[in-house]
Amino acid sequence: MFINALSHYLPEMVVSNAHFENLNGLSNDWIVGRTGIQERRRASVQENTNTMAVEAVRQGLATLPYDVQEIDLIVGATYTPYDTIVTLAHVVQHDLQIPEIPVVSVSTACSSLINAIEVVEGYFCMGKARRALVVVSDHNTAYSNESDKIAGHLWGDGAAALFISKERLSDSDLYIRDVLTGGAATVGKAIEGVTMRPLNGGVNMPQGRDVFQNAVIYMPKASRQVLQRNGLSVDDVDWVLPHQANFRISKKVMEELGLPMEKLLSNIQYLGNTGCAGCAIGLDENKFRYQKGDRIIVTTFGGGYSYGAMLVEV
Amino acid sequence: MFINALSHYLPEMVVSNAHFENLNGLSNDWIVGRTGIQERRRASVQENTNTMAVEAVRQGLATLPYDVQEIDLIVGATYTPYDTIVTLAHVVQHDLQIPEIPVVSVSTACSSLINAIEVVEGYFCMGKARRALVVVSDHNTAYSNESDKIAGHLWGDGAAALFISKERLSDSDLYIRDVLTGGAATVGKAIEGVTMRPLNGGVNMPQGRDVFQNAVIYMPKASRQVLQRNGLSVDDVDWVLPHQANFRISKKVMEELGLPMEKLLSNIQYLGNTGCAGCAIGLDENKFRYQKGDRIIVTTFGGGYSYGAMLVEV
Repeated sequence: MFINALSHYLPEMVVSNAHFENLNGLSNDWIVGRTGIQERRRASVQENTNTMAVEAVRQGLATLPYDVQEIDLIVGATYTPYDTIVTLAHVVQHDLQIPEIPVVSVSTACSSLINAIEVVEGYFCMGKARRALVVVSDHNTAYSNESDKIAGHLWGDGAAALFISKERLSDSDLYIRDVLTGGAATVGKAIEGVTMRPLNGGVNMPQGRDVFQNAVIYMPKASRQVLQRNGLSVDDVDWVLPHQANFRISKKVMEELGLPMEKLLSNIQYLGNTGCAGCAIGLDENKFRYQKGDRIIVTTFGGGYSYGAMLVEV
Repeated sequence: MFINALSHYLPEMVVSNAHFENLNGLSNDWIVGRTGIQERRRASVQENTNTMAVEAVRQGLATLPYDVQEIDLIVGATYTPYDTIVTLAHVVQHDLQIPEIPVVSVSTACSSLINAIEVVEGYFCMGKARRALVVVSDHNTAYSNESDKIAGHLWGDGAAALFISKERLSDSDLYIRDVLTGGAATVGKAIEGVTMRPLNGGVNMPQGRDVFQNAVIYMPKASRQVLQRNGLSVDDVDWVLPHQANFRISKKVMEELGLPMEKLLSNIQYLGNTGCAGCAIGLDENKFRYQKGDRIIVTTFGGGYSYGAMLVEV
């Protein structure tokens, strides 16, 4: 699989740590020390998961090397839905006016990006699609309580789009060499660590410590698995883009992999945890840094628990 | 693909039409005349999408012709989530204690059953799974307003599980010969016909007429497409199991296909619209009626819009 175009959308409103100091007394030093987060974006009252998804896709159309009508599959992903019936994938189909193609939305929490790409891989394998659009969007601030001292300061909003083809279309395509996903609902406090119950308090993280501990086990483990089955080792990796949940988690992932911090791609400092959009935004934002031949490991971990790793070659 | 075991779960509480006559003045005759619905099930306060999913799966284990630990993929589906992070697929993984297999939940409204099965088809094609568990569960009454005279009386709750293998495992397996899905967000009032906005009023159907009109176009159309590409015609069909939304829609689908009502499988009369679980419950409930060699068309339509058709052989 090959990424032909990449784009993302961020809401304009910036919420700095000073906002939380006023709101619930959490200081900038405290938040930065524990999470690495300095600021995050918040969707306006006119925006939601669906509008952000549409904006992210529109941003990508300018660099798309084929007609939008050639898109033959749309896979959306979110755990903070605006509408679970008229999903982000359906509003994108409507906006692009591409009739009668498979359209589906997925949720595996913060790891949904890689799950969505694996669903695409399946459609490509079956010959049921050749040009897929993956759109990831999370509107965390709609479902979180910003006063919550445990997790209120973590969340940001954002969306991203990846246009993916079965065959290479251009020299500048990013090659998705392999994709691996897994559920880890059998370990630790998987089914209570972090929850998003629309009718029961929205996003909450009652077991943050357990989430942290398993994130730093599963992201390095999945990364190694995907490298190993491609005859590669950690030494062959130029960039690591872990799920953007907490800078301390990212740092620990690099330590576990034995890789220097220079190889880390990170946006948590200025975007907070943007859910399943975080890694996709990061992959797009850092395009200018990649050199031909670079290998990128994208690895995710989410509530439930769920994890994934993807090997991308420039 | 082959269905090796099928099961479903229904909440105990039965809500008859008399309940609505008392609540908002809709009479039994009015409801039956417009929808065919006489009663529906309602989950108790201890139940939700996730608990119903777990129950449906547990029911199926007794007849599963292999060890539960051989399951290597779980795909959940719902548009009425209890938890979008700890999804129904993740709680099922937790309940079965099957470690480190791909686990994902999907939403394409009432047509999600067939989308979930198409995702499984992709994993089978890639060789990433051989024994999949599809679990569909909708808790409509959690998100609907029963006083709503437009749609409050339509909704019921329920769940079902399908255990699906890549190769035939027994003579009694149901053979899924072909699967087709599509989004139809480009037509009619697709993105406003029926909506499920967790933070904005739950399930609503402001454009029921448009939903009806497109349901009776897309279900026959998708059914014909899937038959045609398998060298079959409507005359080769023994049973039709359309999405259980409204008995008048089902009747119209049979008329459009030119098939007699004796070939219709229906549970809307006593279950109401159980969302993406409806057809799966119906497929299970009617097992005793199928004869060897029978062909079943399962066809779905949902908000967004989205549609699908699946050809099953006994």
